[in-house]
Amino acid sequence: MENFKLFGNIDRAQNFLESIKSGKSLFSFVISYTETCEIPGITFAGADKNSIQFTPPADAEYLHYGYCKTIDKIPMTPDGKPTPGLLTKTALESSSIPHLTINAGSKISPQLPFIETGLSFGKNILTKDAMTDSQVSHAVDFGRIVGRSLASLTDCLIIGESIPGGTTTALAVLRAFGYDAKVSSSIPDNPVELKNKIVESAMKRINSDHPYSIVAKVGDPMIPFVAGMLSSASGVSKVMLAGGTQMSAVLAFASKIGFNEENTAIGTTSYITNDESANFKDLVQDIVDIPIISVDPGLKNSRYSGLRAFSEGFAKEGVGAGGSIISSMLKTGNDSAKFLDLVEAEYGRLFT
Amino acid sequence: MENFKLFGNIDRAQNFLESIKSGKSLFSFVISYTETCEIPGITFAGADKNSIQFTPPADAEYLHYGYCKTIDKIPMTPDGKPTPGLLTKTALESSSIPHLTINAGSKISPQLPFIETGLSFGKNILTKDAMTDSQVSHAVDFGRIVGRSLASLTDCLIIGESIPGGTTTALAVLRAFGYDAKVSSSIPDNPVELKNKIVESAMKRINSDHPYSIVAKVGDPMIPFVAGMLSSASGVSKVMLAGGTQMSAVLAFASKIGFNEENTAIGTTSYITNDESANFKDLVQDIVDIPIISVDPGLKNSRYSGLRAFSEGFAKEGVGAGGSIISSMLKTGNDSAKFLDLVEAEYGRLFT
Repeated sequence: MENFKLFGNIDRAQNFLESIKSGKSLFSFVISYTETCEIPGITFAGADKNSIQFTPPADAEYLHYGYCKTIDKIPMTPDGKPTPGLLTKTALESSSIPHLTINAGSKISPQLPFIETGLSFGKNILTKDAMTDSQVSHAVDFGRIVGRSLASLTDCLIIGESIPGGTTTALAVLRAFGYDAKVSSSIPDNPVELKNKIVESAMKRINSDHPYSIVAKVGDPMIPFVAGMLSSASGVSKVMLAGGTQMSAVLAFASKIGFNEENTAIGTTSYITNDESANFKDLVQDIVDIPIISVDPGLKNSRYSGLRAFSEGFAKEGVGAGGSIISSMLKTGNDSAKFLDLVEAEYGRLFT
Repeated sequence: MENFKLFGNIDRAQNFLESIKSGKSLFSFVISYTETCEIPGITFAGADKNSIQFTPPADAEYLHYGYCKTIDKIPMTPDGKPTPGLLTKTALESSSIPHLTINAGSKISPQLPFIETGLSFGKNILTKDAMTDSQVSHAVDFGRIVGRSLASLTDCLIIGESIPGGTTTALAVLRAFGYDAKVSSSIPDNPVELKNKIVESAMKRINSDHPYSIVAKVGDPMIPFVAGMLSSASGVSKVMLAGGTQMSAVLAFASKIGFNEENTAIGTTSYITNDESANFKDLVQDIVDIPIISVDPGLKNSRYSGLRAFSEGFAKEGVGAGGSIISSMLKTGNDSAKFLDLVEAEYGRLFT
């Protein structure tokens, strides 16, 4: 277990890691969209403004096929740094963990079979309510159905997400629920002031303290959907929320609708738990008493600058990378150095 | 095992039943549509002409919620006989077998989370090609993806279907592949002459002996999709095709694209294997050397005429009823009498 750092409830963390090691895992990849990502400067999750909407389905296609159908290349930042999906793909493939894609409000459908929920994408919270209350109910209800179904098919359900601009809606939801949140970003020079301006504007529209109403005003479809999944799945199997900031917003909302804490952990990368511009570990522990499992993917030692970038603050997390790497290392016995070899081979396949 | 009759490869049948008993099962419900069902007199799968298109999604909703959202009541024949989904629902619920719905060309989407494939419904084969060759490729490819994913999550993948009018397209595919097929019907007075007329008309359009081309001309989307599922899933887990006539057409096409016969069985009701107007057992054995497992659901002893009707030739099979009952009896140890009690309780809940 020396590959991981554990925070929060350490006993539960050890127990959680043991059960992943011995059981079956299933990676579920929830793709979604918030128009908030269209605010200039808010995200790097796409080569340019127009391509951001293709990032979630393209990530799903890349995980499945090893290439994308919706766009020509795999998703990357404007200056060519690859999607964290590259880490997820390497992790899942090396450990033969199966995966399913779930469309919970993506603007574009992926070109592969996926679980459809009928959810619409979220509106730009700078200027509008993200959703209606009834859309939030729909997201929670369908999340519960999907969570229960998938958890019945595995011992540990890993949930990752792709929603560009999602750290901003996550920040708004966390603040609206009263948490002193400072969130991470896909951009090293985290656009904190811009995010704060958007969040303040969005919070002015809140006119009820009902959790569904709050998420409807300032959230995005991923948050209530994944909270619904967690709520039912954690009654049936272990659940690892694979992500950083956005999964802390899921936890904040899920703690209002109820879930089984004893079966739940959050798994992420050391790039999130070490991020000085955010307060991830304190925040999660403030919300709920679950373990935080953090893995160092070892990318700072890479010979490729495109991989070293993750350790320098680009992307940091996403597409469930951290949780996937944790599960993969537990199943294969690989350490960070071996994982780096595998990631470099995949990077080489894609770019050289 | 005295609840079942075994035909075909008996050794494989015994082996198959043993592995279902000890392992986990997953029921996948494939909904689809062919405009062939709009030919008057061809199907009873709906209360009237307009409601037939709602039958597949409504069956899916009923299996999941215990009631339908797309229509007011559960699907039934024009004179009020219930969908065979009632048998499936009872079987799955009593044995806690999980299920997932897959939309492979339904005209209407169900109001629950489901696996989306992007397939279009099939055209009326009396007057048009059912699909293009490239739609058949899409169906096979996506079927393979779904089959591999689901099989990796279970020990036995049960596949059921709902496609009104599907026995007619199945008959056309079987005849086009050179089998001397006489197929069953949801109608006791099987409209054989009408079916033959449609099939003859459709077969005139066949201008290639390529299996994809044949299915494109005279089939429906369910057949290549489920054949694709079988093709990949049978390499990973056991697969039970739950159905009668339509699953024999799937087998005919699947034997052209390849699948693992040792992991495959067909499970159905005695109402199919005893049907004198069809030649199901001989037909399946003519196509491929796999076991046929047949169960008597015991409905002739019911106090409800709506349930006795199944034993009198109405519906006979559908929504994977036979295969679900077989799997359920193996897991619970129930016999036909106990199953009848459970079905009557469900019938009572719905109708009294």
